[in-house]
Amino acid sequence: MDFQDYFPIWDKLNTAQQDRLRGSLFTRHVRKGTLIHSGSADCTGLLLIRSGQLRAYILSDTGREITIYRLFDRDICLLSASCMLRSIQFEITIEAEKDTELWVIPAEIYQGIMEESAAVSNYTNELMASRFSDVMWLMEQIMWKSLDKRVAAFLLEEAAIEETTVLNRTHESIANHLGSHREVITRMLRYFQKEGMVRLSRGTVELTNVPKLQQLCDE
Amino acid sequence: MDFQDYFPIWDKLNTAQQDRLRGSLFTRHVRKGTLIHSGSADCTGLLLIRSGQLRAYILSDTGREITIYRLFDRDICLLSASCMLRSIQFEITIEAEKDTELWVIPAEIYQGIMEESAAVSNYTNELMASRFSDVMWLMEQIMWKSLDKRVAAFLLEEAAIEETTVLNRTHESIANHLGSHREVITRMLRYFQKEGMVRLSRGTVELTNVPKLQQLCDE
Repeated sequence: MDFQDYFPIWDKLNTAQQDRLRGSLFTRHVRKGTLIHSGSADCTGLLLIRSGQLRAYILSDTGREITIYRLFDRDICLLSASCMLRSIQFEITIEAEKDTELWVIPAEIYQGIMEESAAVSNYTNELMASRFSDVMWLMEQIMWKSLDKRVAAFLLEEAAIEETTVLNRTHESIANHLGSHREVITRMLRYFQKEGMVRLSRGTVELTNVPKLQQLCDE
Repeated sequence: MDFQDYFPIWDKLNTAQQDRLRGSLFTRHVRKGTLIHSGSADCTGLLLIRSGQLRAYILSDTGREITIYRLFDRDICLLSASCMLRSIQFEITIEAEKDTELWVIPAEIYQGIMEESAAVSNYTNELMASRFSDVMWLMEQIMWKSLDKRVAAFLLEEAAIEETTVLNRTHESIANHLGSHREVITRMLRYFQKEGMVRLSRGTVELTNVPKLQQLCDE
């Protein structure tokens, strides 16, 4: 499988545009934990994920984090090329949550094609609208959902992604996903444990009653 | 002043596109308090504000609100035409905060032009990026700023917009802006009053110490 099989609008490019793209993109293999993009000073380019998992998050002045979206196989990360959009006025950080293979499309090449091609520009619009929707979903969660439901939803999401009920997650990393504090997450997880929904041990959270966690989310 | 003086990329349209736009748009005069757009079922079209003020907000199941952005003279509201973007998966409500004169561009006309014109599509990208940035700013406020600073910032913003330090605002409407509860806002404003920053009376909040409010925001 080649780049053109992964890039959804390859067929909408003309030959010259295909050549420019093919001639400028490159592949990267990054290890789990690698910081791929950091704030607006960094014009990394668009990232097309061949396999792996990325996390985009924002950082407070005091080092707190909250995940704003996650990307999986075949997803495209647009905001790592936010330098090409004047009106993007925020800074995100992107790290690999798993070993990841990806293609990098240099921002200035993509921008050049986007400026001449309505098809590419409209596709970019849809990409941005998807990420915008992710953030609006998150906003609704933060505003209207209590933290117990958000923790339960995160544990279930992780279990689905990892295909296991034994999660290798520190309380700190869960706090960083949800924009909370470690102490708060620890207290919540201990409450879940008392209720028989999880079993805690050093560095892992085991889901022992998935239906009950699901019920908590759905309430 | 005509539509073409307000629409920033008029000169980038060809004559046929200009004619289609001019032939389909219409003006609306809405009174303060009018609901202009309500959720995704409603494909109102793009709104270009000639004069006035709009507020875009989201609503919870239980009727709570939070303002996600506000629009003023010459601003364009894109999300009232979100039906034309498949990937927009959230619902916003738009109401007039003042008597407002605006042009409505029907969504299907704009979409047709956007699909054929890279210039229009790229402009739309920038519009969406602006609103996306507004929401990310708000997210950062909610996550990392305490409510006292957010209330102070809102009062100062209102005073700047209205060009007066006597705001005709109920505690309820402030709560709806900030995604909070009336009781919480009342308690906060009483604390501000005790600190000499505001004076409260029925239906109004008077800012009596702007520098102190500013200092609270900047801390």
